[in-house]
Amino acid sequence: MFNSFGNILKLTTFGESHGIAIGGVIDGFPAGVDVDLIAIQKELDRRKPGQSKIVTQRKEPDTVEFLSGIFEGKTTGASIGFQIKNTNQKSKDYNHNTNVYRPSHADYTYDKKYGVRDHRGGGRTSARETANWVVAGALAKQLIKHININAFTSSVGDVFMMKPYQEVDFSKIEDNIVRCPDDASAEKMIAKIKEIKKAGDTIGGTITCVAQNMSVGLGEPIFNKLHAELGKAMLSINAVKGFEFGSGFCGAKMQGSEHNDVFNEDGTTQSNLSGGIQGGISNGMDVYFRVAFKPVATIMQNQQTINSDGDLTEIMGKGRHDPCVVPRAVPIVEALTALVLADFYLLNKTRRI
Amino acid sequence: MFNSFGNILKLTTFGESHGIAIGGVIDGFPAGVDVDLIAIQKELDRRKPGQSKIVTQRKEPDTVEFLSGIFEGKTTGASIGFQIKNTNQKSKDYNHNTNVYRPSHADYTYDKKYGVRDHRGGGRTSARETANWVVAGALAKQLIKHININAFTSSVGDVFMMKPYQEVDFSKIEDNIVRCPDDASAEKMIAKIKEIKKAGDTIGGTITCVAQNMSVGLGEPIFNKLHAELGKAMLSINAVKGFEFGSGFCGAKMQGSEHNDVFNEDGTTQSNLSGGIQGGISNGMDVYFRVAFKPVATIMQNQQTINSDGDLTEIMGKGRHDPCVVPRAVPIVEALTALVLADFYLLNKTRRI
Amino acid sequence: MFNSFGNILKLTTFGESHGIAIGGVIDGFPAGVDVDLIAIQKELDRRKPGQSKIVTQRKEPDTVEFLSGIFEGKTTGASIGFQIKNTNQKSKDYNHNTNVYRPSHADYTYDKKYGVRDHRGGGRTSARETANWVVAGALAKQLIKHININAFTSSVGDVFMMKPYQEVDFSKIEDNIVRCPDDASAEKMIAKIKEIKKAGDTIGGTITCVAQNMSVGLGEPIFNKLHAELGKAMLSINAVKGFEFGSGFCGAKMQGSEHNDVFNEDGTTQSNLSGGIQGGISNGMDVYFRVAFKPVATIMQNQQTINSDGDLTEIMGKGRHDPCVVPRAVPIVEALTALVLADFYLLNKTRRI
Amino acid sequence: MFNSFGNILKLTTFGESHGIAIGGVIDGFPAGVDVDLIAIQKELDRRKPGQSKIVTQRKEPDTVEFLSGIFEGKTTGASIGFQIKNTNQKSKDYNHNTNVYRPSHADYTYDKKYGVRDHRGGGRTSARETANWVVAGALAKQLIKHININAFTSSVGDVFMMKPYQEVDFSKIEDNIVRCPDDASAEKMIAKIKEIKKAGDTIGGTITCVAQNMSVGLGEPIFNKLHAELGKAMLSINAVKGFEFGSGFCGAKMQGSEHNDVFNEDGTTQSNLSGGIQGGISNGMDVYFRVAFKPVATIMQNQQTINSDGDLTEIMGKGRHDPCVVPRAVPIVEALTALVLADFYLLNKTRRI
Repeated sequence: MFNSFGNILKLTTFGESHGIAIGGVIDGFPAGVDVDLIAIQKELDRRKPGQSKIVTQRKEPDTVEFLSGIFEGKTTGASIGFQIKNTNQKSKDYNHNTNVYRPSHADYTYDKKYGVRDHRGGGRTSARETANWVVAGALAKQLIKHININAFTSSVGDVFMMKPYQEVDFSKIEDNIVRCPDDASAEKMIAKIKEIKKAGDTIGGTITCVAQNMSVGLGEPIFNKLHAELGKAMLSINAVKGFEFGSGFCGAKMQGSEHNDVFNEDGTTQSNLSGGIQGGISNGMDVYFRVAFKPVATIMQNQQTINSDGDLTEIMGKGRHDPCVVPRAVPIVEALTALVLADFYLLNKTRRI
Repeated sequence: MFNSFGNILKLTTFGESHGIAIGGVIDGFPAGVDVDLIAIQKELDRRKPGQSKIVTQRKEPDTVEFLSGIFEGKTTGASIGFQIKNTNQKSKDYNHNTNVYRPSHADYTYDKKYGVRDHRGGGRTSARETANWVVAGALAKQLIKHININAFTSSVGDVFMMKPYQEVDFSKIEDNIVRCPDDASAEKMIAKIKEIKKAGDTIGGTITCVAQNMSVGLGEPIFNKLHAELGKAMLSINAVKGFEFGSGFCGAKMQGSEHNDVFNEDGTTQSNLSGGIQGGISNGMDVYFRVAFKPVATIMQNQQTINSDGDLTEIMGKGRHDPCVVPRAVPIVEALTALVLADFYLLNKTRRI
Repeated sequence: MFNSFGNILKLTTFGESHGIAIGGVIDGFPAGVDVDLIAIQKELDRRKPGQSKIVTQRKEPDTVEFLSGIFEGKTTGASIGFQIKNTNQKSKDYNHNTNVYRPSHADYTYDKKYGVRDHRGGGRTSARETANWVVAGALAKQLIKHININAFTSSVGDVFMMKPYQEVDFSKIEDNIVRCPDDASAEKMIAKIKEIKKAGDTIGGTITCVAQNMSVGLGEPIFNKLHAELGKAMLSINAVKGFEFGSGFCGAKMQGSEHNDVFNEDGTTQSNLSGGIQGGISNGMDVYFRVAFKPVATIMQNQQTINSDGDLTEIMGKGRHDPCVVPRAVPIVEALTALVLADFYLLNKTRRI
Repeated sequence: MFNSFGNILKLTTFGESHGIAIGGVIDGFPAGVDVDLIAIQKELDRRKPGQSKIVTQRKEPDTVEFLSGIFEGKTTGASIGFQIKNTNQKSKDYNHNTNVYRPSHADYTYDKKYGVRDHRGGGRTSARETANWVVAGALAKQLIKHININAFTSSVGDVFMMKPYQEVDFSKIEDNIVRCPDDASAEKMIAKIKEIKKAGDTIGGTITCVAQNMSVGLGEPIFNKLHAELGKAMLSINAVKGFEFGSGFCGAKMQGSEHNDVFNEDGTTQSNLSGGIQGGISNGMDVYFRVAFKPVATIMQNQQTINSDGDLTEIMGKGRHDPCVVPRAVPIVEALTALVLADFYLLNKTRRI
């Protein structure tokens, strides 16, 4: 219930930042799907720490090991267990945090909720958990190969990629370390992050995700609308503060006469302010949405805070942290999108006789 | 699965716009809660059509009838069945739509997904469903009376209430028909809606919701984060295009050193850009978020569209529709917020020994 | 969670014995199924009180009213709401029970669990709830028309129908009021019930259920095995004390060499001690099982008991009760069987690509 | 959904008999529980192969490794991941089965359902999975320490322990290798199994389980009745064919006047044919039930069967198998009972204000 995501295709996860391993169980994955393990590891590598100068310098190989559910290269319909061992935890970096509540982290709320807390590297609250999602999402992508899912960095701080997604070449996303397919914007974003990092500070940003070649009919009314599940998924990612799809918050300023997507004879629409979803169900047009990430809370500056006894104290970030979470979050956004779409793809098989 | 919302406290609903009745089952509601039926009906009245000049002129009494689970004024722990009869359907207003796909409505996607469609008033896709949510939410409010939930209209089109929520008096929300607690803004919003209505057009807007006097510890990691469930709930409301909490999309432009909420000695924070949630769990500060609504798709203007045979045709809105969905959506936003918080309130009782 | 049954096809119910109405929501039912409302009402009539001399003489028409999800004779894929009004409650028959715990009823446990109790006719604990199940099951039957489900009375007290099910004609089940397809046994059973009734006592019995023309592949490992879900369903029926399938408890006395079902070349088996299920999945052979019902707890004899203050008192059954629950439980067993099979039928569509 | 068990306390598992590892995730376990790892391993040891002469001679250490959710000896409220490595698989013992459907095994149904099959040692269908349940159940026991759960072998073939459970000393269960607390019966059972084993055959049996010092109020109407969940759990165990609680199938022969449990003034009852459950909810009396196991399907005798091409062939059990599953199933029955009770114990915290 709490560590699970999905309806038919269900991911259940476990693992703390500095425990023995993280991992999970993927349930409901259909039998007979050819599994490309290399493609899965490749997605993990896109997320892993230490991959470039603008992300955390922590080094972890993050190798996924599948324990069940795959036999002779195919899924068997059995639940798929997997784990990623934690190899380079450096817990001592976190010993100074044992008793201290880091500002805008979950230390305080975990302590108040549970009465105990695995303080090492944030324990269960760490974004390390998202590696599990990338594994499951990469597998889900192999179930819905016909749909193309591409996420990219669309802003860092006040640097925005102004081009609409239709005008960029998704194959260029991996060409730069910030994962923005527009060269000029990417350059500015990278400069911004380096500048911020130098100041011992962090910066927020946004990711845009586009699913193309969509099946029609994905998504369930009333409470499992496609965009509601996508929104829930994105809001599950650490540091996310907002989600909008199609016209989004801009749509709230518009009039119906300009916002409505007029049909073509073939059922496609002339505009797509709806973001490919009507009444919670995909209409075959591109599904696109935008996700807002706050700046990472751990900064390399002195901050006043309190400890668990309620005493005032100071804290300064140690360890190796991301100055901007956005570049590494790109594969996470794609992974969760794939999980949501694959789940609805399976569900849809049951919706009419 | 598809028509249910919640984990412990679970609402399951049914009903089409022009069927016999809508209604639902509220499961998991604890025994022993005194039920104030008048308060529930009052919430329904806040949502009902025909209440003012800036909403649809359809007249429906929308009287809720409880069928089970309440005995001698108290909940019994049994599932609570309820229904609201549809009394004034005017199906004939919709006969012209039988075969036509209204632009930016769910007619097309329902037809493609299900192969059949109850076209009368949008059938299951109609926002009439939200009356069910208001009933359940009003009941949920009575379970978590200590928490104060207030939603209000924060923008209509390009008219924004610029005051922060801390500076307005929530008791004034019901003082005007647009449900904005700031008189000056309310006046402008009402003028805007009247102007738009006159033009046979519709307009979008935003609602802000604030939960005060929060319990600490509500919300569950990893996938049932408080803000993720709130976001999913809000994105389930018809016409919603976006959700942000705390700093939201603005937070994506900020730096960590300015975004972090520094602790006071008592565990409260000096700022609250986090929106009262850390790591998916409430920290006791105000929870606040903003929801974006697109303009209503049904406009009183001629639009080109297609029918189910794929022929081009024209359509013009008939029936009685809202020029702006926002004023009537205010109690809906509050209701879903109450459902989410009450669910987590119950769940939290199981989280530590 | 508590008042719901099923995975994809999910029934959620509400209603007390003497409330306004009972009813429910059927979610996940596929679109496009032709609904035979008369057949559904006919199943309800098989369960209704007052239908013969060996069942309770309470008269209730038990007319089901569908409120949504069916349009122009077909399911639409929307959730299906329904209700059955309580028309003849005679609550005054139960006033003497307000404060008294009837032996082997749920009065005591409900009071201890919930602190409040709707004592009228047993409230939520009444077998009246099973009328909801019959509605949903009758609808489920229409989804899996190819499977034939037949339940019948196989024993009343110590009167057993000794013939194996293969030797009886299921079309004769409705030929007598005890619903046993073997004339000679039926006669003895009816005599037994009349004798017991005269003594103001009640008697137990068993129902056997057979599903023929089974699809292969229904049922899910590991925890949703076909027989585990059937067992759970049957154990949900009021007064049920046991469930066995295939060889059942007799199988526990056997040796492997005599118990194993040897294959024919076409994949059928020569014997069927497995009861049509291997590893939780149907193998295409007949699924059959047996359900044990205890004698009804309400007897027309004086019994010592206690009230909610813990004082000793006496109680004697009033109202109109069944001397033997088994004849009216036959359609209930069939209905739940249909629900389980239909759910797995839908689930199975998602299990391989 | 498919590989998960429980509502609030939820176990999700993975693993094939001859894969790399089996394991699972325990979700919803409350924070702050002291974990006795040695007690958990001890339960696993009770189930492990090779422990005596009357069980399979396969040697596997079956060491559980916890990967998350426990910190400094206490549960943290995070999901608890665990695994048991498969160390001694001897897959070659099963190579002769690659293509052959073993009678009364799940080979045929898995092939038909999924189209692919991990044939090694039965893959996911193997009772090896039950080691996962023992881990989770042993942990659950530590949450509900006040309840005493004892299972024991009550029959092997036609050898029955005739004494009622009230007359035996549960501390003697582990005194003999068949796990029957009555010495005389145990001796006969052991002799029976040895005789059967010598003949290359297998034999069925029953296990009785008793939960004492029960909390009042555990179990949820309507579909999550305590006995319905217990029944579902037991029917999930490999080889189980039946479940009965309290008076069980015998109750179906009785009259109400003899079956009713008359109350004492303190709310206890003079008899307990109800098996400690009324209306699906525990009443504080002993909960007891009986589970029927068929003889193991793998016998050391030649059997006719078919292969996946539909050709007739012969098969004879190789590998190391249990002549009677019952002695090793005792800790499994206890583990699932603990899981069910612990789940309801947590749920019950949410049922009244």
